Amino acid sequence: MVVSSGRPLRVIGLLSGTSMDGVDAALVEVRGTGDRLRARLLDFRTFPFARGDRERLRAAAGRGPKDSAERALLDARLGELFARAALGIARRSGGVGRVDLIGSHGQTILHLPARRGGATVQIGSAARIAAATGVPTVHDFRAADVAAGGEGAPLLPITDYLLFRSKAEDRVILNVGGIANITVLPAGASWERTSAYDTGPGNALIDRLASIFSKGKRSFDAGGAWASRGRTDGDLLDRLLEHPFLRRRPPKSTGTETFGDELARGLAREASRARMSAEDLLATVTDYTAACAGREIRRATGPGASVYVCGGGARNRALLRTLAREVAPRAVRPLEELGIPADAREAVGFALLASEFVHGAGYPMRRVTGARSAAPLGSFTPGPRPFRLRLAARGK
Amino acid sequence: MVVSSGRPLRVIGLLSGTSMDGVDAALVEVRGTGDRLRARLLDFRTFPFARGDRERLRAAAGRGPKDSAERALLDARLGELFARAALGIARRSGGVGRVDLIGSHGQTILHLPARRGGATVQIGSAARIAAATGVPTVHDFRAADVAAGGEGAPLLPITDYLLFRSKAEDRVILNVGGIANITVLPAGASWERTSAYDTGPGNALIDRLASIFSKGKRSFDAGGAWASRGRTDGDLLDRLLEHPFLRRRPPKSTGTETFGDELARGLAREASRARMSAEDLLATVTDYTAACAGREIRRATGPGASVYVCGGGARNRALLRTLAREVAPRAVRPLEELGIPADAREAVGFALLASEFVHGAGYPMRRVTGARSAAPLGSFTPGPRPFRLRLAARGK
Repeated sequence: MVVSSGRPLRVIGLLSGTSMDGVDAALVEVRGTGDRLRARLLDFRTFPFARGDRERLRAAAGRGPKDSAERALLDARLGELFARAALGIARRSGGVGRVDLIGSHGQTILHLPARRGGATVQIGSAARIAAATGVPTVHDFRAADVAAGGEGAPLLPITDYLLFRSKAEDRVILNVGGIANITVLPAGASWERTSAYDTGPGNALIDRLASIFSKGKRSFDAGGAWASRGRTDGDLLDRLLEHPFLRRRPPKSTGTETFGDELARGLAREASRARMSAEDLLATVTDYTAACAGREIRRATGPGASVYVCGGGARNRALLRTLAREVAPRAVRPLEELGIPADAREAVGFALLASEFVHGAGYPMRRVTGARSAAPLGSFTPGPRPFRLRLAARGK
Repeated sequence: MVVSSGRPLRVIGLLSGTSMDGVDAALVEVRGTGDRLRARLLDFRTFPFARGDRERLRAAAGRGPKDSAERALLDARLGELFARAALGIARRSGGVGRVDLIGSHGQTILHLPARRGGATVQIGSAARIAAATGVPTVHDFRAADVAAGGEGAPLLPITDYLLFRSKAEDRVILNVGGIANITVLPAGASWERTSAYDTGPGNALIDRLASIFSKGKRSFDAGGAWASRGRTDGDLLDRLLEHPFLRRRPPKSTGTETFGDELARGLAREASRARMSAEDLLATVTDYTAACAGREIRRATGPGASVYVCGGGARNRALLRTLAREVAPRAVRPLEELGIPADAREAVGFALLASEFVHGAGYPMRRVTGARSAAPLGSFTPGPRPFRLRLAARGK
C-alpha cells in the first residue's frame, strides 16, 4: 500500500494570490528530494472565482472586525473551490486517483510581520480539500516559519533554488509582483548561499497610477504602453532613488504600505501641480521600478549573471527595456527559458514544498525570512488514504 | 533516528474546555494501536489561564464580528500557553525531550453544526506548540469529521472505546458536562457496535438556575447541596420529561440553546409565579437531568450493565442518588474505578487520538457524528525533529 521511495510523486500545487482572482493549479511530477529533486510540469491552469466568492474574499481580508461565522464558512467554501481546482487540473491527466499529494497555499487574508506580533492567516480548509479529493494535503506553509520567528515570506526561494539553480551560470530570478523581489542563485552554490529579498517597488505602484490617471478604468499599464509614450523626469527619478529602503542591506522586505497607494497618490498630486503628463510620470515610475531591481542585481552578482523575469512585470516592455540597460552586460530573459511558465512558478513551488514536506526536508531560513529553524514547512492532513508516519527517536 | 514500532509512545494531550479556565494536560504512555492499544496515565494537571487571557478568549468566542488581527494574535498566544502547559507537564517526568508527540485539541471558539453550514474552529496555533516544545503535534481533530459531513463531535467515544471497553461487562460512560452524553460499550463488542449520543440536560441548566437564584454569586450547586434540601415537584418533572428531544432515537445531539439559559430563565419565572422555592426547583431540575440520562441508559443496556460517571455532574450527590434509582439494578460508579481520573478523560483522549493518527488509524464515525468517512482525524505539524511519511500507493 505504501509508496516506494524511488517512484516519482504526482503533486498538485494550489494557491490564490493577492489579486484574489482565482485558484492557480499546477500538476507536477516530482522525483527525489533536496539537491537530487527533479520536477516536470504536466499541466497548469487558473480556475477563476465567481464574482460572489471574490467579493466574500475581499471582505474577509485585512485587519478590523470580520464576522466569525462568515469567516468559518468561507474557509470551508474556499476549501471546496480549491478541491474543484485540484479535480479540474487532474481530470486531463487521468483523474485525482493518480495524484499522490496536494500542496495548498490557500488564500492569505492577514499577514502580520514579526514586528507586529507575527501571525499569518491562510484560509481554504485543507480538511475539505483532502475529503473532497481523497488526496492527502500539505498546507499552512507559512505558520511554521512565523512560529520560528521568521517573516513567513518569501518561501519560493526554496523552490527557485530547487528548480532554477545552475552549476555553470550565476542566476537571478526577478519576480515583479505587487512588490519586486529577487532570488540570487550563484553558480554551483548550495542552499546556504542562496539569498532572496525585496528590491523595492513592483506593479502595485504602477497599477495604482494607471488606475488614478484612467479614473479607475484601467487597473494596470498593459504591456507598459502608457509608460513607453512618456519621457522620464531625471530629477524626480533621482529623488525617488534616495528612498531609505534602497540603501538598506539585504535581507530586507517591504510592502505596498511603502510602495503602493499612498506613494502613488502623492506622486499624482505632485505631477498635477507641476503639469507633468500621466505618460511622463508612468515612464518615470516604471524606470524607478526597473532601476531599484537593477541596483540590487548589480550589487548581488557579477557581470556574467543572467536575470530571469517573472510576475506581471515580465509583460511590461518599458520596464524590461530599462532593466536590460540597468543590468547590462547581464542578460535579461523570460523565466520560461528555464522550462517553467512564469505564471506557474508559484503553484509549482507549493507542489514542491509539499513534496519536500513528505520527505521531511527542511531548509534553514535565517537568510531569507529570519526564522531560527530549519523545520519542514507545513501541516499534513491525510484524508481517507492510508499512510505511515514514523517519528524521530526522542532524546534522553 | 526513527521510532521502532514496538516502543511505546510518550504522548501529551492538551485541551481547553468550554469553561475556558485553563489548559488540561495529560502525559500518557501509549503502546500499540486500535484493539491492541494500551495506555497508562503518567501525569495530569490543569494550568489555569491568567485573567487577561481568559477575557480575550471569551471575547473571541461565538458568532458575530471579531477583530481579525486580535484573533490571529490570540491564536499565537494560546499556542504559546498550550506549549507552556506541555513543558510543565513534561518537567516532572524528564522534560519534553522524552516526549514523542503532542495531541492538542485547542480551544473551540466556534462550532456550527452541519445544518448551519458545518464549520468548527479551534485556536491555539499548533505551529507555535511544535516550535516552542520541539515536539511534533497533531491538532484540528474535528475538521476532518466536519469535512466528511459529520457533526465534529463527540470524538471521545473513540477513546472511551479504546480505554474503557470490557470483554465481560456492559459499560456506559456517562459524562455530565454542560450537556450530558453517554458512550455505550456492550461487553466484548467491536467499535462498530459502540454508540454515543447526548441524553439531554447536563450541568448547564442546573448551573444557570444556581446563578439566577444566588443573583450571580454561585456558578453551580456545589455537591448538589442546594437540590438536596428541596423536594421534587412531580407534575413539573413529568411535564419536563415530555420534551421532544427525549423521544428522538439515537444518535442525537443537543445543546445549551435547548437545555441552558433560556429554559432556566423560563423555569425560574414560573417558579416565582407559583411560589416554588429555589431548593424545590433545583431538586426538580437535578432529578430531571438524572432521569433523562437514566432513561437513555435503560433503553441502551440490560440490567447487568455498569454506569461510570464523569464530568462536573459526578460531584453532584443529589444527581447521583437519583441516577442510581433510575438505572437500578445497574451499578453507578465513578469513572476513576477504570483507572483514569474523571478530570483527565478528555486530555488523555486527545493524547490517544494523536497516537492513533500517527498509526494512520481511522474509525468509521457514521453512528457517532454522522460523518461518511473513516479517515484518521487530525493534522500533523512536525516542528524541528525528523520524521518519515509514506503515502499510500495511488490508484489507477
